[in-house]
Amino acid sequence: MLETLADLGEFGLIDRLDELIGREGVQAPRVSLGIGDDAACFRPQDGYDLLVTCDCMVEGRHWLPAHIVPHDLGRRAMALNISDIGAMGGSPLYALISLGLKADTPITDVEAMYLGFLSELNPFEASIIGGNLTKSGNGTFIDITLIGEVEQGKMIRRSTAQKDDAILITGYPGQAAAGLELLLHAGIHEDFKGHPLVRAYNTPSHRAREGRAVALSGYATAMIDTSDGFLGDLGHLCEGSGVGALLIQEKLPMSDALIEISKQLGKNPYDIVLGKSDDYELIITCDPENVDRIRTILGHINQDPVSEVGRITDAPDGIQLVLPDGKARLMVPSGWDHFSK
Amino acid sequence: MLETLADLGEFGLIDRLDELIGREGVQAPRVSLGIGDDAACFRPQDGYDLLVTCDCMVEGRHWLPAHIVPHDLGRRAMALNISDIGAMGGSPLYALISLGLKADTPITDVEAMYLGFLSELNPFEASIIGGNLTKSGNGTFIDITLIGEVEQGKMIRRSTAQKDDAILITGYPGQAAAGLELLLHAGIHEDFKGHPLVRAYNTPSHRAREGRAVALSGYATAMIDTSDGFLGDLGHLCEGSGVGALLIQEKLPMSDALIEISKQLGKNPYDIVLGKSDDYELIITCDPENVDRIRTILGHINQDPVSEVGRITDAPDGIQLVLPDGKARLMVPSGWDHFSK
Repeated sequence: MLETLADLGEFGLIDRLDELIGREGVQAPRVSLGIGDDAACFRPQDGYDLLVTCDCMVEGRHWLPAHIVPHDLGRRAMALNISDIGAMGGSPLYALISLGLKADTPITDVEAMYLGFLSELNPFEASIIGGNLTKSGNGTFIDITLIGEVEQGKMIRRSTAQKDDAILITGYPGQAAAGLELLLHAGIHEDFKGHPLVRAYNTPSHRAREGRAVALSGYATAMIDTSDGFLGDLGHLCEGSGVGALLIQEKLPMSDALIEISKQLGKNPYDIVLGKSDDYELIITCDPENVDRIRTILGHINQDPVSEVGRITDAPDGIQLVLPDGKARLMVPSGWDHFSK
Repeated sequence: MLETLADLGEFGLIDRLDELIGREGVQAPRVSLGIGDDAACFRPQDGYDLLVTCDCMVEGRHWLPAHIVPHDLGRRAMALNISDIGAMGGSPLYALISLGLKADTPITDVEAMYLGFLSELNPFEASIIGGNLTKSGNGTFIDITLIGEVEQGKMIRRSTAQKDDAILITGYPGQAAAGLELLLHAGIHEDFKGHPLVRAYNTPSHRAREGRAVALSGYATAMIDTSDGFLGDLGHLCEGSGVGALLIQEKLPMSDALIEISKQLGKNPYDIVLGKSDDYELIITCDPENVDRIRTILGHINQDPVSEVGRITDAPDGIQLVLPDGKARLMVPSGWDHFSK
């Protein structure tokens, strides 16, 4: 029989995880006290501001256990927090993990989840310095608080886009949504675990290095990650900045895999690219003359596309999508509203 | 019909709470960006270390909706985090609130809970700078991350108690446990909401001001709050410090209300004082010659008792309780293990 939380107890599990973190994790800088006291303690770095974000995932709502293994679940939960820090221009430093767990959860599953957290944190020399474990009767939840730092004056907000700015998007938004569709429509004998779109859903990449490079360059006017979907987060950016946006449909980036799956599913691929999706690309706005400079900077990190997809407009215009025939369609961003009926 | 989360939606609720926080909360210092972007941002203060703690409460496990109103629930959830910061000698600054909510939760309940959070934060000029809202199918959870600060070099750990130190306890540990017993044993027509023990359970006080004053004095060798019960947390302190403890039973502080309720319930009052309980007193260890100095310092804050209840001993002794007949009994701290069978 697999050892469970009920066997080991809360304090037993904490000891086990503490040992795992010591063995598999890296030590973040300037931590004077990690796990094991009433609070953790660290010394901030001169010349830096601190960033802090908090994201929670709930079983059945943000993931289905049948579709994702614990290690990937840990990676995904941490990647979405890292994405938030990166979208401000910061670098992650310290994580606090709060888990609600069922008593019959195998310890090996919890350990695999922590290895997933660490595999995302280690490349940044970021570490887990605290958290909380509690029993949750009816389902697992993973709540992560991530603290990062950014050089004073270098943070990029979502609320500072300017009329006539260019709108850039990294990578291929919508890949994760397409992967989820694949999983939900899979027959009982189909195994899509290795499919690139499913991988995009289960272990999405973040753009924290890209976000940081853009912030340090000073060329961007605003930035946001696409955690509520491309259109949803462009909506947040426009609302926060008091602007509108004009998107050119044929400039929207789209992978061959997404086009093919859209055909198979009978869906409009543009709906997938623009709609809610659990991938974490960056929307960047900048003066049009800085587009190439930003592309050059991001080209030093990887060869993923950075697509210029439109322009920031006046607020009354809302978000307009220009179709191939030249007609503009008003778009209503819905994002991912967890309470919508 | 009461407006619910399902009516308002996630973003609608965020806007509503943001407005409430702006109206009812105070503005913490050095926040350059609060709720509304990918992450919050603040500038740390020169000469200070940062403290961070995270505590989660789950409906049905940490509270029963029939026994506590949302405002008190908010107070309790925040007080236990403030207690953790205070037990390190720090002062709370910034809170992130992560809520898992049922779709049919009335908005007024969520607002009342936030007013409870703010009523605990405002006296410290601490504020809510971020968080997360998500739907939780089967029960509410409240996960709070609280960031505080402490002057460099002034933090007090649980792991630095010394042999022959005096052991002090603030207030009356066990009051909350007695209050919970009252609620659980109440007949259907009995209303104990105003009973002092029930108030101790529903709206426990913390000792953050006391903890901070002790830390700044430099007289304490170690400190911990009693969130796992007096014996449970004395056990954590002893384990962390590699020491044992000798407690004198007749020196344990006990309120008249607790003695009376113990009689009514047929329980040993010392079991309630030492056992698991949701109140947040401080266990402080110090050189015996500093006991009066610490009492004087705490006497400037309030007139609550500060009881000297025993001595730190060698580790092999474990925790011994000296009974009135002079015999010593070995105590096994159990604390509050959320996963124990």
